[in-house]
Parts: sequence; structure tokens; C-alpha cells
Amino acid sequence: MYSTAFVGHHLNRVAVMGGTHGNELSGVYLVKHWLQDPSELQRRTFTATPFLANPKATERCIRYVNQDLNRSFKKSFLTSKGTQDDLYEVRRAQEINQLFGPRDSADAFDFIFDLHNTTSNMAACLIVDSEKSVFTMHMCHHIQKHIQGPCPIYLLGWPEQEKFALLSVAKNGLGLELGPQPHGVLRADVLSHMKALVACGLDFIDLFNQGTSFPAFDTVAYKVIEPMDFPRSPDGEILGFVHPQLQDKDFLPLKPGDPIFQLFSGEEIFYKGDATIYPAFINEAAYYKKGVAFFKLEKCTFSIPPLEASATSAP
Amino acid sequence: MYSTAFVGHHLNRVAVMGGTHGNELSGVYLVKHWLQDPSELQRRTFTATPFLANPKATERCIRYVNQDLNRSFKKSFLTSKGTQDDLYEVRRAQEINQLFGPRDSADAFDFIFDLHNTTSNMAACLIVDSEKSVFTMHMCHHIQKHIQGPCPIYLLGWPEQEKFALLSVAKNGLGLELGPQPHGVLRADVLSHMKALVACGLDFIDLFNQGTSFPAFDTVAYKVIEPMDFPRSPDGEILGFVHPQLQDKDFLPLKPGDPIFQLFSGEEIFYKGDATIYPAFINEAAYYKKGVAFFKLEKCTFSIPPLEASATSAP
Repeated sequence: MYSTAFVGHHLNRVAVMGGTHGNELSGVYLVKHWLQDPSELQRRTFTATPFLANPKATERCIRYVNQDLNRSFKKSFLTSKGTQDDLYEVRRAQEINQLFGPRDSADAFDFIFDLHNTTSNMAACLIVDSEKSVFTMHMCHHIQKHIQGPCPIYLLGWPEQEKFALLSVAKNGLGLELGPQPHGVLRADVLSHMKALVACGLDFIDLFNQGTSFPAFDTVAYKVIEPMDFPRSPDGEILGFVHPQLQDKDFLPLKPGDPIFQLFSGEEIFYKGDATIYPAFINEAAYYKKGVAFFKLEKCTFSIPPLEASATSAP
Repeated sequence: MYSTAFVGHHLNRVAVMGGTHGNELSGVYLVKHWLQDPSELQRRTFTATPFLANPKATERCIRYVNQDLNRSFKKSFLTSKGTQDDLYEVRRAQEINQLFGPRDSADAFDFIFDLHNTTSNMAACLIVDSEKSVFTMHMCHHIQKHIQGPCPIYLLGWPEQEKFALLSVAKNGLGLELGPQPHGVLRADVLSHMKALVACGLDFIDLFNQGTSFPAFDTVAYKVIEPMDFPRSPDGEILGFVHPQLQDKDFLPLKPGDPIFQLFSGEEIFYKGDATIYPAFINEAAYYKKGVAFFKLEKCTFSIPPLEASATSAP
């Protein structure tokens, strides 16, 4: 256990991003609604700013125009000039970094919520950079206590990997990844669940800003190991599909020898790893192109230190 | 009841179309598989031809390139020359009409299966031009008797409407519309169900070709009345979404006064019609653009005459 508390500063500037992927409609339409009527984002100690991250992709109801915006926050893109600027999402990432960052600067927003959907059966997945983001891990814990249904924590980072996601622009951030929902479809149940999750996250910030202290806790989270691709032919064509026994089983244990794919010929493919893993993003539509049938995750337990508010405001 | 039997001719040429919409993956990958190994399509009295209808859209995993191929079989498109030929799907419709038609000619294929998916909860929906297509109605009846789970019959035609769909190229045709499945995703359960439905349809043709007679029957089918759009602002933006009580309730009765939409403001919208209708294609992703939140259907009962094979082959 950690012995000393993590001391955080009052959060003044919070943003809620929708349409980072233009065909993930829960966030798109919540943000459009909040741009008209932001009352649901108002709290006593701050007000969150709604923002449509990729309006051109949103208008066309596609994931992105030139490249995935949520992979466009690598340093090389944020600092690029010239030809890469011709890519819409590179320019947009730079704009977002100016408006809500600059990343790693004192001027950066205190917190970003980034709203996503997936075709995978991920429930209300909470995406966090790392378990070392103590403030966000406390927010996840608060959400898990107050929201009905599973809210698994998904830890993005390969530790050495360069930051690539929109979330990384702010000092802290939380991705909400709700599914299953087909891209291009707005389901009432998913929409209301996402609205409740954002409200709960905003409430947590408000409690913290009011001086509430949060005790230490132990928590389970799932850490990305690596992606697993579909079986493919030498020219990249998929040769099979997610096994019916694996479909919809996100965050459930997958043991060595369990079936993972079925080929069009009928043959079954079994998981060959050495240890039990926990798959997520199983059969996500947007990941066929990226060479990902699912991500392999390990289930970890972390001890999170207490969280206390600083007596002073953020530097 | 009809008193006289409908006499049909031996079917020699049958096609199975996948990828009419390039992101509806059950048909895309079944057809790709059958192009490699057509053994599942072979029957004693004929062999079906697999065909990838929109390869350019399939390659990009999008519904269509320039316009919806399954709306490109209107006479004006099939006979157009010049600028309309610049549209990929117009050219493709003309090619398909040459290969599998020409429509309304003696040279046309005897039967086309056209394989589709939907994000709506349509189960294994059987799409038929009209209840007057006696041969196809018998095939549907055969499928309903041999396939587990609901296989509702959806009748396309406004009677006066000009033929627009790929199916219309052949002498007879059946659309399979399986869902829910997100576009761009291949689910094992939906794939195996579609494979079983096609096999059952082919078996029916084989039985018929072997001289089997099929008795008269009464059947329920759902006939399209008209589309119902989302509530929209004057500039076309949707103002709400399918009501949670209507979502996934395809082919179930919707009564006057039942809720159909919920606005982002929270307000509910109720169905104002005079009579009970049966909605289908509720919340289909591709129909947002087409101004369709669902189609209104009426539930009808039809008496279908007996079906007998002619002693002679098709003219």
C-alpha cells in the first residue's frame, strides 16, 4: 500500500469531447445537445466545455477523413509542418492541442472526457492512460460505485509508448468506450448510459473541488499486452472470423487451448499462449483494417493511494 | 383460396449475390468463400453461381462508392448512357443486368439470392418482391418450416413502384436480410445462419427441379406501407432517436399512442397513426441518410396456390 496521499489541485477547466470518431454517435449527439444546452455539464465549482472533435468526419458519419484522429496526437504530428498538414486530422490535432493543451504545459486543460462507442461487448469501459494516473483511477472507482452494471478499467499504455490519443492533451483524462453499438447508429440505452457516466465523472470532480478526500483502495484493471490479428492470407485477406465461443466475451478469461477463430473452411483455431489472458475490443469493426481481432489484456490489481485536494489552486 | 396450381419451370441458372452493399459482411465473405470452394452451392439438378456484386465498395468496406447499387436497377439507370455511366454503381448495375438478365427477358437467370445484413433486429428476414411471386413464397414457406427461429416475410412493393433492386434482374429472387449485425463486422452466429438459409433455399429449388409438388398454404407476410423519418430540424439534423421501448422491436405491433422517439431534450414522441402497424428496419445505420427511422408495415395473410413443376424446361 502507498503510505502517502496523492495531492491534486482544483480543476478549473474540463472538456467533454464527442465525435473524435465521427461515426460513434453517442458522443456525437450528446456533445451536439450540450452545445445547444450545456446545463447538464454545469457544476458548482466548474463548468465543462463540450467540443466536437472531428466535425468533418461527423458530418459524413465516418470514423475519420484522412487518418484516425485518436492516433494523431503523437509528437511528430503535433509538431509537423508542411505536407503532413495537408491531412485534415493532423491539422485538427494541432488545433485541439492549441485549444485544450498544449500537452504537458501548465496551460493545458485539467481534464478531458473523450466519448467513444465500439461494436464490441465492452459494457461501460473506462479507458485510462496508466494506473499511475491517480486522480483518474479515483474517478473510475467513484463511477464503479455509483453506476449500475460493469465498468471495467482498460489501461492503454505500453509504458514506453509515445502518447497518441486525444486524452493525452489534458493533464488528466478518461475515455468512455461504450458498446456494443453499431457505428452510425444511436441507441437510446447506450446514450442514456453514457450521459449518466459523464454526469458521475463531473460529480466526482465537483466533490474533489469542494475538498472531499478519497481513501486508498485496491482495484482490478486490465492492462493491454498486445493486439491479436485475424488469421490472414499472404495478401492480407481474412481467412476466418471470431469464434462464436469468443464473440461478446470481452474481459472474460481466455485460457490456452480455448477457441478464438473459425476459418471459412470450418477449421477452428485455438489460443496458444502460456497463460490466461482477458480479451477486449473483440470484433470491433474499425480494427479489421488495423490488424486487430481483439486486444490481449492482463488482469492486474493495483493499490491506489488516497487522494486529497491541495489547499492551493493549480499552478 | 386459389383453385389452380401455379406451374413453374425447371430452374437451371441460379446466382448467389454477396456484397451488394460492401460493408454487409456475411454475404461478402460467404461469396468470397464460395468463389474459392463452390461445393456448398452444388445440388443434383443445378449449381448456383456465387457473385460479388459491388467489389469496389467491398474492397473499401463501405456501402457503396457513388450511389446505392441496390437502388440502381431502375430502368432509367439500366438504359442510361453518358454522364450517369460515370457513376460506378450505374455501370455495375448495367453489367449485372447483362450477366444475369437482361431483366424481363427469357435469357434472365431463373433465381437470385441477394445477401444482406442490417443493424436492425430483423432476425432472418426474407425479402420478396410481392406475394404474387408464388415460387418465392413457396421457398419462404419451406425455409420457415426448416430453419429454427423467426423468418418474417417482408414484401417490398408498393405495387406501382418501378423495380429498383438487384433481385429484379432475375425471373425470381429472394433477399436475405439478417440482423442485428453492425456493418463492417462478421459475426459467426449470423454467418452460419445465413449459410443455413441459402442452403435451405437451394434445397427447395432442387426438390422442385426433381418434380416435387408443393400444396397450397396460407401465410403471414408484412407489406411496406411507407417510411417514417426521425424528428428533424429544418436543416435536416436529427432532433431525437428511436425510443428505447421501440428499439429492437421489429415486426412487433406498434399501436397508436405508443412511444416511437425521444428528443434530446427528453420529450417523447408518440405514434399518431389510426391503426396498429408493424415496424421494421428500426434504427438501420444506412437509413439515417435516407430519411428512414423505420418502415411502417401492415401484417397481411395471403393464400398461396399450390406449386407444381412443368413437364417441360423453361422457355
